Amino acid sequence: MLKIYLDYAATTPIDPKALKAMTPYLKKDFGNASSIHNFGQKALSAIDEARVSVADFLGCQPQEVYFTASATEANNLALQGVIKALAKENKRPHIITSCIEHHAVSETVKHLQKQGAETTFVSVDKEGIISLSELKKAIKENTVLVSVIYANNEIGTIQPIAEIAKILKNRGRKIYFHTDAVQAVNYLDCNVEKLGVDLLTLSSHKIYGPKGVGALYVKKGTPIEPLIFGGGHERGLRSGTENVPGIVGLGSAIKEIQNPKTKIHNIKIKQLRNKIIKQVPKLIPRVKLNGSAVQRLPNNANFSFEGVEGEALVVALDQKGIAVSTGSACSSRTLEASHVLLALGLPEEEAHGSLRISLGKYTTGKEIDKFLKVLPPVVARLREISGYKKNA
Amino acid sequence: MLKIYLDYAATTPIDPKALKAMTPYLKKDFGNASSIHNFGQKALSAIDEARVSVADFLGCQPQEVYFTASATEANNLALQGVIKALAKENKRPHIITSCIEHHAVSETVKHLQKQGAETTFVSVDKEGIISLSELKKAIKENTVLVSVIYANNEIGTIQPIAEIAKILKNRGRKIYFHTDAVQAVNYLDCNVEKLGVDLLTLSSHKIYGPKGVGALYVKKGTPIEPLIFGGGHERGLRSGTENVPGIVGLGSAIKEIQNPKTKIHNIKIKQLRNKIIKQVPKLIPRVKLNGSAVQRLPNNANFSFEGVEGEALVVALDQKGIAVSTGSACSSRTLEASHVLLALGLPEEEAHGSLRISLGKYTTGKEIDKFLKVLPPVVARLREISGYKKNA
Repeated sequence: MLKIYLDYAATTPIDPKALKAMTPYLKKDFGNASSIHNFGQKALSAIDEARVSVADFLGCQPQEVYFTASATEANNLALQGVIKALAKENKRPHIITSCIEHHAVSETVKHLQKQGAETTFVSVDKEGIISLSELKKAIKENTVLVSVIYANNEIGTIQPIAEIAKILKNRGRKIYFHTDAVQAVNYLDCNVEKLGVDLLTLSSHKIYGPKGVGALYVKKGTPIEPLIFGGGHERGLRSGTENVPGIVGLGSAIKEIQNPKTKIHNIKIKQLRNKIIKQVPKLIPRVKLNGSAVQRLPNNANFSFEGVEGEALVVALDQKGIAVSTGSACSSRTLEASHVLLALGLPEEEAHGSLRISLGKYTTGKEIDKFLKVLPPVVARLREISGYKKNA
Repeated sequence: MLKIYLDYAATTPIDPKALKAMTPYLKKDFGNASSIHNFGQKALSAIDEARVSVADFLGCQPQEVYFTASATEANNLALQGVIKALAKENKRPHIITSCIEHHAVSETVKHLQKQGAETTFVSVDKEGIISLSELKKAIKENTVLVSVIYANNEIGTIQPIAEIAKILKNRGRKIYFHTDAVQAVNYLDCNVEKLGVDLLTLSSHKIYGPKGVGALYVKKGTPIEPLIFGGGHERGLRSGTENVPGIVGLGSAIKEIQNPKTKIHNIKIKQLRNKIIKQVPKLIPRVKLNGSAVQRLPNNANFSFEGVEGEALVVALDQKGIAVSTGSACSSRTLEASHVLLALGLPEEEAHGSLRISLGKYTTGKEIDKFLKVLPPVVARLREISGYKKNA
């Protein structure tokens, strides 16, 4: 059976170009980047080159880019690292974040709360957009760090990062601003100057690079301390032998985003996604689009189907060869309702019943047609099984 | 120029078998292991299989194996994680370690010291073997954790881990015991029951697996807390999307160690290494073997050449196509003398002048002959440049 992958927000296949770039470092150029000899030099040059590619994309200096093993680690380094560095001066630092962060941010903030930080989780409107007035009101004397996700992983809602940055400026003291840009990198402008952020997280495996690599932008002068100690790699901020092929893969993948072809891919993706958003409510009764119609990533669609369990739907579609998701991949294995959908004001039942369809550059019109053909009878069957029809 | 790699302690090339095992996960089987659908299931199965391979090698349960992005991270997780978990009951926990740990342990212990832990660095004898009597004396009422490297990365000295474990037992209370086994895995018995350890760190890229992967054995019941928070991967201990190809590569590489061929490789490696240890002092005057003659990894040789800077030697040999190292790769780029050699009682000058030759399974007799031919004139030339001969 031909498989249709519509879960690009969970992970992307490696672009053949990125894999090709990685291959020498998986084979003959296997040196440790800390070694002085030729094998080491080659590895170090490759990392330097990847760092320049990431910096070019972000519009920052290469020395402001730190490689990690995942975006989760980068988010942890940003939040824990800054709070650790500031804790010396500030015994009860205050962190502001949104209610619809990825777990990598929200769980880290909760951890910091346990360790003595004060925290505020700012609410979002029914489209998932952060309340700027609430954010403004939340700022206190001891507010040192704000972290807001650029584009949400479940519903694709895009936050007004540059506007938030403006709010945080000129307050008489520095409030550091971090954004988790993992889902945004493929589609949105991530120039750190324009965004006005001090820290930005990105992931390799969400942008057609390999798994096991992430990066954190840290604006020069931002106080930050390491989480992992050792040989002093990444200028002392993140010890551990560098994953050379992984970093090279990330470098190649991020370069590819700047390729004019990506714009063409993204237009196609948006057209196909719009077809889904338009057709699904026509084909299936009692369905609701979650998130914003406008401020939304071009590859994301997220629906709630009345009377249908999201997980049952994912399993049923998988049996038909279609890979989609309920919420984020990370919380797929838990039975909790999506905290993102609950934050939009959805009742628990609906927050359980959501389906995320996320497209990517290899998605074809034929795949979307197949999906639109398969989905309605599957929903109908699941509603029948659950007895929904009888009660409707 | 044909390159001769004699720096296997810094990193190893990926075994073609491991790369072959990884390849599907770098290509079509790219799923996120947290996804419910078929792509995710395949990824999850692959991780499960790798976990079983690691557990088989260590003689533990698969649930006791946690994947990380590096051995450095695993060491940090072991030490920071256990101390964090125990800090609730014990305000001033005491940690014992050796003077010749890898930086990933020593720097982490120093960090914990800054955070309020009490620490003791136990000395070693002139061969680099830990003083058991000093270790015994160091144990206090508040000693909760001991970390001793199984085999040293610079001089290859093997520590009596099982004996240390016995010393730590039956003390009326539990003292947790961690070993950094990174350099040991290729050559020594790493059965955790026999060793008597509660935590053990290993690295993929030191055993012919890919970079970017490590693992930590955590004995069931050991109190430990995560360093990185998020989606709750690795049963809540280490969040972040799993590096599926990397983990598969580690699984394949560790399986290969149990292949009877490895024993044959290791005999050959030892013979070639012995040839170096025997020949170098014959070919070059005023040279000293650092470390133990007996309690030593079979692939390691480490010399100090009077009047020769280690770094100059590495660079000069590199120009001849031979890749070796001064101390550990991680500290290659610093100008500090090796803390390991200083701990053996070497004067600073000699600790600067060391050369580490580390062999691996692809090392040939021809390569060693070439090395033995190239080394003497290079040492002689460097001594001439430094004016050593005149003063001698």
